[in-house]
Amino acid sequence: MNTSEQNKPIFPKGDPAIAEYFTGQAWVKMLVPTGTSLNTSVANVVFEPGCRNNWHTHPGGQILVATHGIGYYQEKGKPVQLLQPGDVVQIFPEVLHWHGATPDGEFTHIAIGTNTQLGVVNWLQPVTDEEYSGLRSAK
Amino acid sequence: MNTSEQNKPIFPKGDPAIAEYFTGQAWVKMLVPTGTSLNTSVANVVFEPGCRNNWHTHPGGQILVATHGIGYYQEKGKPVQLLQPGDVVQIFPEVLHWHGATPDGEFTHIAIGTNTQLGVVNWLQPVTDEEYSGLRSAK
Repeated sequence: MNTSEQNKPIFPKGDPAIAEYFTGQAWVKMLVPTGTSLNTSVANVVFEPGCRNNWHTHPGGQILVATHGIGYYQEKGKPVQLLQPGDVVQIFPEVLHWHGATPDGEFTHIAIGTNTQLGVVNWLQPVTDEEYSGLRSAK
Repeated sequence: MNTSEQNKPIFPKGDPAIAEYFTGQAWVKMLVPTGTSLNTSVANVVFEPGCRNNWHTHPGGQILVATHGIGYYQEKGKPVQLLQPGDVVQIFPEVLHWHGATPDGEFTHIAIGTNTQLGVVNWLQPVTDEEYSGLRSAK
């Protein structure tokens, strides 16, 4: 494989994410669906700059593998974490959190839904501009 | 992120794989361990050219996400599949299979262990040179 091939994203950008649960534009490419005996889903998610998902929880948990760009991950009541390519986040069942891009660039992660026989996601309120911009001044 | 940064692998190569279960050299970087409430493990695996793991099964299944190079995946009694970056394989519980590199280049995949509360892997016999080279003539 030559260098120019390695530069390409390995997944297509996928379908627009459900707008109700995101601030800004994201795209989701499902790679492994829920509902199989693996009890695990896999999706590639691309966030445009400034985009983040709503506060949410996963009944069975989730694992994020950051692959391109720089992202944010925050659990309720904890400092935001910067995610760089190769960073991995373990999100345990029922932990309230959100994730997304920084204001300055697109961010991509693989999202692995775990124990999906327990349910996939419970969406809550958006991450407000105040919450999101507060992160930047705290850096 | 500039182009030269995107060219780098996003995970370190990790530790040498357990030689007993591989023909040739592989490296494993554990990203998420077994034994948590996520019931899911994640590892990055790099196979040198010609390297493959033994025939094996997973009590809870496994998902492979091919990321660099070209690989092989084969289930017992079925034709070999060529894996290219972005290809995803769902391996259901107790399905006998092996995976590895082609003879011509290094191959890397992310391995997601599913339902790990049921166990991780049961190793069987090596993939012989005859089995492996038989694939090439069948292409």
